[in-house]
Order: sequence, then C-alpha cells, then structure tokens
Amino acid sequence: MAQQGILIVVSGPSGTGKGTICRELLRSNPYLKYSISATTRKPRTGEVDGINYLFIAKDQFKTMIEKDELLEWAEVYGNFYGTPCRYVLDQLNNGQDVVLEIDTQGAMKIKDKFPQGVFIYIIPPSLDELADRIYKRGTDSLESIKQRLSCVSNELVQARNYQYLVLNDEVPKAVQKIEAIIAAEKCRSERNIDLINSLCHANYTCEQHREQPNI
Amino acid sequence: MAQQGILIVVSGPSGTGKGTICRELLRSNPYLKYSISATTRKPRTGEVDGINYLFIAKDQFKTMIEKDELLEWAEVYGNFYGTPCRYVLDQLNNGQDVVLEIDTQGAMKIKDKFPQGVFIYIIPPSLDELADRIYKRGTDSLESIKQRLSCVSNELVQARNYQYLVLNDEVPKAVQKIEAIIAAEKCRSERNIDLINSLCHANYTCEQHREQPNI
Repeated sequence: MAQQGILIVVSGPSGTGKGTICRELLRSNPYLKYSISATTRKPRTGEVDGINYLFIAKDQFKTMIEKDELLEWAEVYGNFYGTPCRYVLDQLNNGQDVVLEIDTQGAMKIKDKFPQGVFIYIIPPSLDELADRIYKRGTDSLESIKQRLSCVSNELVQARNYQYLVLNDEVPKAVQKIEAIIAAEKCRSERNIDLINSLCHANYTCEQHREQPNI
Repeated sequence: MAQQGILIVVSGPSGTGKGTICRELLRSNPYLKYSISATTRKPRTGEVDGINYLFIAKDQFKTMIEKDELLEWAEVYGNFYGTPCRYVLDQLNNGQDVVLEIDTQGAMKIKDKFPQGVFIYIIPPSLDELADRIYKRGTDSLESIKQRLSCVSNELVQARNYQYLVLNDEVPKAVQKIEAIIAAEKCRSERNIDLINSLCHANYTCEQHREQPNI
C-alpha cells in the first residue's frame, strides 16, 4: 500500500518571507502539490487568481462555509481566508504531499483535524528585520502595516504550537530545512506502520535459508 | 545560548548494514562525533580497539558498572556491551551531535534516560536479503549466525519503539535520510525554546520603526 501523502502546513508572521520560501520549495520539488487558499481580500499587485489565491466574493465564501467545503476558514483583518477540502484530501489519498501556506488561526484548525500533518513556522532572524521587510514590500497601506506589526508578538507566541521552526535568514537555507523536514517525516515510524507489520509478521528462521555461509 | 547537541541512536538487526551506514554518515559529516561502545567480546577481523569498540576485559567492565560510568549496558549473546557516559555528555553539552550505534536493549535504556535523543532503526529491504548479508559477511560462526537469524523477528518488533525507520536499500540513500532527520530535528520547536522565548519577549510595536514605508 502506498504511503499516504503528507500535509505540510507553513505559517509565519507577515513579511517573514514564507511566500517566497513556499514558491522556491515548490519550484525545486515539482512532486509537491500546492493547496491554493480561497480569500475575499483584494489581490495585491502581481497576484493572480487561481495561482496565488482563489479570489472570491464574500457571498460565495459564505456558501462554501454552509456546504462544509472548507477544511478551515477564518476572518483576518476583515477578510475571509479558507482552504477548500477536496483538492487537499484527493492529493493526500493519492500519496501526494501537499503544501499549505496559511495563517496561524487556520493552521491550528487544521492541526485539530489533521494531527498527522507537519506544522512548520517560519521565523524572521529578528523583529527589526521583519519590520524592514514589511515596509520595503510596499504592498500594504500604512494603516495595515501598523496593525500587522503590533500583532507580530502575538503571532510569534503561536510558534510554540508548531512542530518545527525554520529561521528564514537565507531563502535557500530555509528551503533546504523544509526539504529535510519532509524527508525526515517520511521516515517516521507512525507513517510506516504497514512496513513494520509486514517485516514483523514474516517469521524467518535460519532453517529457511539454504545457502551455506562462506566461513 | 548554543543549542544542545543531539544524541542520534542507531540500531537495527544484525547484518542490516548499520555499521556501514554509520561509517559513511560520519565520513560525510565530520562535525558528527561517534560514541565508541565498550565491549567484552572478541574483536572481529579488521576491528581496531578504540575505533570500532573499546575492547575491555569482563572485570574492567564490571568495575565500570559498579562506578556508574556507563550510560547503559547489556549482555548480548554472552558478551557485555555498554556506553561510557563521560564522552557523550561532554559532547552534547558542547553543542556537538553524537552518533551512537547500539543494540535495541541499550537503545531503550538510553531512551528512558534521554527521551530527547533521536532514535533511528535501520531496516533491511527484506528478511531474505538480511539473511544473505549475514551469511556473506562470514565473520560469525555458523552457530552464532543461526542464533542471530532466529532472533531477527523479535528484534524487528523493537522497530516500533524508534521514532524513525530508515530502509537500507542503498547506503547513500540511507545516509541522506539520516542527514535529513538530523537537520529536521534541529528545527523541532522543543529544541528551540530559547529562540521562541527571545522573539516573543521582544514586544515590538510599529512606533519603534523610524523608516517610512515606500508606498
């Protein structure tokens, strides 16, 4: 039986570079699938519907909530964000690993439903550097930036609820760490129960071996 | 504060190639330290005292037990095996990772004392292949081989008590998996409590940032 795919959930404070890391991770590992979140917020410059997010209207989002078609959803800064179920579950059942980049509220809801997921929190080298990155990105209004930065300390407390912390000092290094985490998780005993059982149930004794040793 | 070193405990049934894997792991990662076990068994052809094992007399071994100088010890096939404490603890406290290749009895004793260790079980692709490897090695007496093979199924049951299973189909692949496990373990939240605390206690607010955003 093929091993079930792994759900890799990536979060981190705004401006910590988690988007860049996820893009680079997916580019270097084409076998990884990306779960696109649905959101009701306006696209930022350069963001494309169906690639960065599924940009949908509030009415449509509320219908998905009612029909239980979202793995999780949350309201953040007045906008709705959520993860459509179908795509993620189909991929995992086919043995495909899925990367999901979501906020901490969403991640913790996923953790309740999927404790077998791998929860990774991207952290900035320092808060000063994080502030610089958000300011320099220049895609948010000043009011939005102020709101985000004042929440950073609260967001960082959430790091304790993730299994792994990945420091984003350099993107390639952070990507390598996530690749190592995925490779390691595939070796975890609880993901290889079938393999252990198949070896243990084979009741091998010396007599079954017909070759003579070369001693 | 420097991160504490990681104790990497490697076990697996006889002939599964764990010795070869550990040697290759240490060769490719010179930053890893190897904990040499003490044993009262006779050296096999090519084995060197102080490199493969500390080959010591039974009296000396018993003195070490009495003086509590062993992290664990066990009697296997009539011989004593054990892990001298001092070297391992000194390295870990200096932030050095230590690799320890021991039998399952020893590993489980270490696990009781060091639940923060990383416990890796090397498994053969199949029991037939395992039997072939032991026969072809030709370093054990026929009686010893028979005794070992009949115990293999019992040994494999122990795999469930390890955090990670690494299939040794090809040595370089198995080594890469262990390297990934070590890299991933360094990212685990419980090994980075100080880092989380330092970030959470920095109570950053937007007003501290004097730059203007470029919007």
